Amino acid sequence: MSAPLFLLPSPLGEGTLTAMFPLFNFQIINSIDYYIVEELRTARRFLRKMNIDKAIDDLTFLVLNEHSKQVNGKEYLQPCLEGHNMGLLSEAGTPCIADPGHVIVAAAHQLGIEVIPLVGPNSIILSLMASGFNGQNFSFHGYLPTDSVMREKEILFYETLTKKTGQTQIFIETPYRNEHLFHSFLKVCDPVTRLCIACNLTTPEQSIVSQSIAKWKKENPDIHKRPVVFLIN
Amino acid sequence: MSAPLFLLPSPLGEGTLTAMFPLFNFQIINSIDYYIVEELRTARRFLRKMNIDKAIDDLTFLVLNEHSKQVNGKEYLQPCLEGHNMGLLSEAGTPCIADPGHVIVAAAHQLGIEVIPLVGPNSIILSLMASGFNGQNFSFHGYLPTDSVMREKEILFYETLTKKTGQTQIFIETPYRNEHLFHSFLKVCDPVTRLCIACNLTTPEQSIVSQSIAKWKKENPDIHKRPVVFLIN
Repeated sequence: MSAPLFLLPSPLGEGTLTAMFPLFNFQIINSIDYYIVEELRTARRFLRKMNIDKAIDDLTFLVLNEHSKQVNGKEYLQPCLEGHNMGLLSEAGTPCIADPGHVIVAAAHQLGIEVIPLVGPNSIILSLMASGFNGQNFSFHGYLPTDSVMREKEILFYETLTKKTGQTQIFIETPYRNEHLFHSFLKVCDPVTRLCIACNLTTPEQSIVSQSIAKWKKENPDIHKRPVVFLIN
Repeated sequence: MSAPLFLLPSPLGEGTLTAMFPLFNFQIINSIDYYIVEELRTARRFLRKMNIDKAIDDLTFLVLNEHSKQVNGKEYLQPCLEGHNMGLLSEAGTPCIADPGHVIVAAAHQLGIEVIPLVGPNSIILSLMASGFNGQNFSFHGYLPTDSVMREKEILFYETLTKKTGQTQIFIETPYRNEHLFHSFLKVCDPVTRLCIACNLTTPEQSIVSQSIAKWKKENPDIHKRPVVFLIN
């Protein structure tokens, strides 16, 4: 009989762990000896912070990230098939949302392994809740093109979609490129379009500002190299 | 100086509260005397379950739901403006996602009130994590039309979009209509399209099955009158 694969959220940044995770997550972590992780160092640091009772050196870590070639889900999930609980850890936030973990989960379903997602911080949902924008209809697009012409074309496309359907559009960016994305919104969007900038979520520096492009044009938000979610509506 | 508006998630169903909410949520609830809620009865029951220290009869509840006419955000948020913490509660899950709360949050931003979203269970994210589908690009559409011809037309539209872009499409349905929606997917989708049915999330009866339409055609899942999220990819 196979054991379950737990999907374990991790912190979005420096903040209080008891504000981010239910007690249950701390308990589950103490039931797991086998982890699939994106980076060893972050994973070990997270487990130490969670005050894990086990010796971290006794745990087995399998690495899955953008450098992993020809991922064989069955190999990764061998411990589950042998009856050991496994944990899939994200670098930040919830696994499988904007990270490569979904390949493992798809394999788990094919192998008949139970998949159990745990509650934790997700920057897309937290920012959507706090934006004041339409939460009945929304789309997450991940990263926009780095080329400014292409990026501005896509922003215009999504802004038009929002005007037609009311759908909220959600984007993220590599933190050192945040200001380029911000200036693209200012350049191409209608002054009445609303832009929400949700920065440093769940940390003591959390800042969530939701206002029209016209108002943003008078401001210079401090978003360089910080984790940000951008939403328009 | 105004006090913050806290966005407080509530349970998705009968389950262990310490598996759903960080400790911080229990602490915040004890700092709040004014709530905006969808239904009084559910809100009171939730606060009792959270073992609130305050007498529930001493709390003030303002009701906001689909029957509320001409919602004046400033009136609802008067306690915040007078320096009292307020809580916005959803009927189930996270406020402002597929519920009317976003109007209040938009008003809070206009009034310069700080908006603080708390971590909690969100059925869209939990089901997406656990589906094994693309989490880099996804869209939530809420409810599909009740008319079967219209519904099937929309399903086909979204399935085509997925084939073109890889985007995961996410839907919910009124629980007593779940089977109609399920049969519409079986009827119109390509046999290789994958459908994930995430049922009773975070409860002891949780069931998450992710497989091709071809495989679903041989099954009859027990989804009648249960809370379900449907995902295709």
